[in-house]
Amino acid sequence: MTDRLLSPDEMEAALRQIGATRYHHLHPFHEMLHTGQCSRDQVRAWALNRYCYQRIIPLKDAALLARMDDTVLRRVWRQRIHDHDGEIGDAPEGGLRRWLALTDGLGLDRDYVTSMEGALPAVRFACEAYVNYVKERSLLEAIASSLTEMFSPMIISIRVRGMLANYDFITEDILRYFGHRLSEAPRDADFALDYVKRHATTVETQRAALKALEFKCSMLWAQLDALQHVYVNGAAAPGAWAPGVAIVEQAA
Amino acid sequence: MTDRLLSPDEMEAALRQIGATRYHHLHPFHEMLHTGQCSRDQVRAWALNRYCYQRIIPLKDAALLARMDDTVLRRVWRQRIHDHDGEIGDAPEGGLRRWLALTDGLGLDRDYVTSMEGALPAVRFACEAYVNYVKERSLLEAIASSLTEMFSPMIISIRVRGMLANYDFITEDILRYFGHRLSEAPRDADFALDYVKRHATTVETQRAALKALEFKCSMLWAQLDALQHVYVNGAAAPGAWAPGVAIVEQAA
Repeated sequence: MTDRLLSPDEMEAALRQIGATRYHHLHPFHEMLHTGQCSRDQVRAWALNRYCYQRIIPLKDAALLARMDDTVLRRVWRQRIHDHDGEIGDAPEGGLRRWLALTDGLGLDRDYVTSMEGALPAVRFACEAYVNYVKERSLLEAIASSLTEMFSPMIISIRVRGMLANYDFITEDILRYFGHRLSEAPRDADFALDYVKRHATTVETQRAALKALEFKCSMLWAQLDALQHVYVNGAAAPGAWAPGVAIVEQAA
Repeated sequence: MTDRLLSPDEMEAALRQIGATRYHHLHPFHEMLHTGQCSRDQVRAWALNRYCYQRIIPLKDAALLARMDDTVLRRVWRQRIHDHDGEIGDAPEGGLRRWLALTDGLGLDRDYVTSMEGALPAVRFACEAYVNYVKERSLLEAIASSLTEMFSPMIISIRVRGMLANYDFITEDILRYFGHRLSEAPRDADFALDYVKRHATTVETQRAALKALEFKCSMLWAQLDALQHVYVNGAAAPGAWAPGVAIVEQAA
């Protein structure tokens, strides 16, 4: 981690270096997911658990918005809440609703998914830690923690292409969440990156911003670790979703 | 989970049933630990990570104390903070200091341990979730979540006997944390159990108290899952402690 003041370009490079070494595109569960090595139940477990993460995105953005004392900044940031929550009447639907199109498409009971009853505790704890991080840290750290968006387009393209090619139960329609993120994420990441480069202007704040991105990578990583431990390696998980539970009959 | 009102004895039985099926004495990492199947580095990883849990015990008890509007209750509950924090000048030392005697005895650098830099994110998230649970839920739920103390004497006896018998780097002195807990935990558990039985007098509050104990079991379980995934199964853990790191030379 840096012990001298970085130029804005060096700061960006240091942030990108964290992505290159700690973002969850390096996690073995992702490799399994897009190369077709997951069973349908493993894909279900992933979608069910990741609902916990999707759920907190508008919550953490609202918490962030509540700490911004600058109208100009709030006008920009509120778009993220629109993107995830959609508009009244689901027209258009938002990211959270699109995620439920995936869990619906995988045959998971929607009430069960949104209850998070069957989600892994470690996944819920990681998501809760993210919301608290955004509430408790500096605005700069909270914004810097969103910078995993810089890396998500890369993983989304590989994932969508791989899942469509490798699973007959996956369709473009149920993966529609990701298509929207491909345009939303770079716009959001560009804004946040610019903000961080302009506001992290001391050794201390640069270090804090880099740590914030490391934290965010760790909460994404922890979610996949928990999935892999239980649904790939077969560890016992008292109370967690098991194959066959909360499956809705449907036309494939 | 209950859908009719339980008698106090039935309530106690339902709480004990949660312990019998979800407490972390059932976790495979514990079996490894006390049967001598852990390497010294695996024992170090356990002690280092569990510091995060020891650290938050007085914090969660202080948060609980801060919500008790009854002097009589506070007089009892504050003893837990004394037990874990000890007295000024470490005379006597408290539980947290005793835990550091274990990490010291395992040759881990104390500043590194207390910085929690090398702790697994999943462990830190689980501990944070516990503190927040106690802050945000009802007083009854917060107190019920402490009831894992009902089950800890069982695991402590097995662990201490097993670790002393199976590891030449473990001594009674560095395990002294556990000896004290054998007398403290039953006293604390008896009080909390009595409180829960007297205050959980509706179907809703009984259900909430049972859920609280399930939650607590899940945060203990998640810590061992994370340890097992990384330090037994060998999963990558960016930034986490690795064998050889922060080891202090010492006379064995």
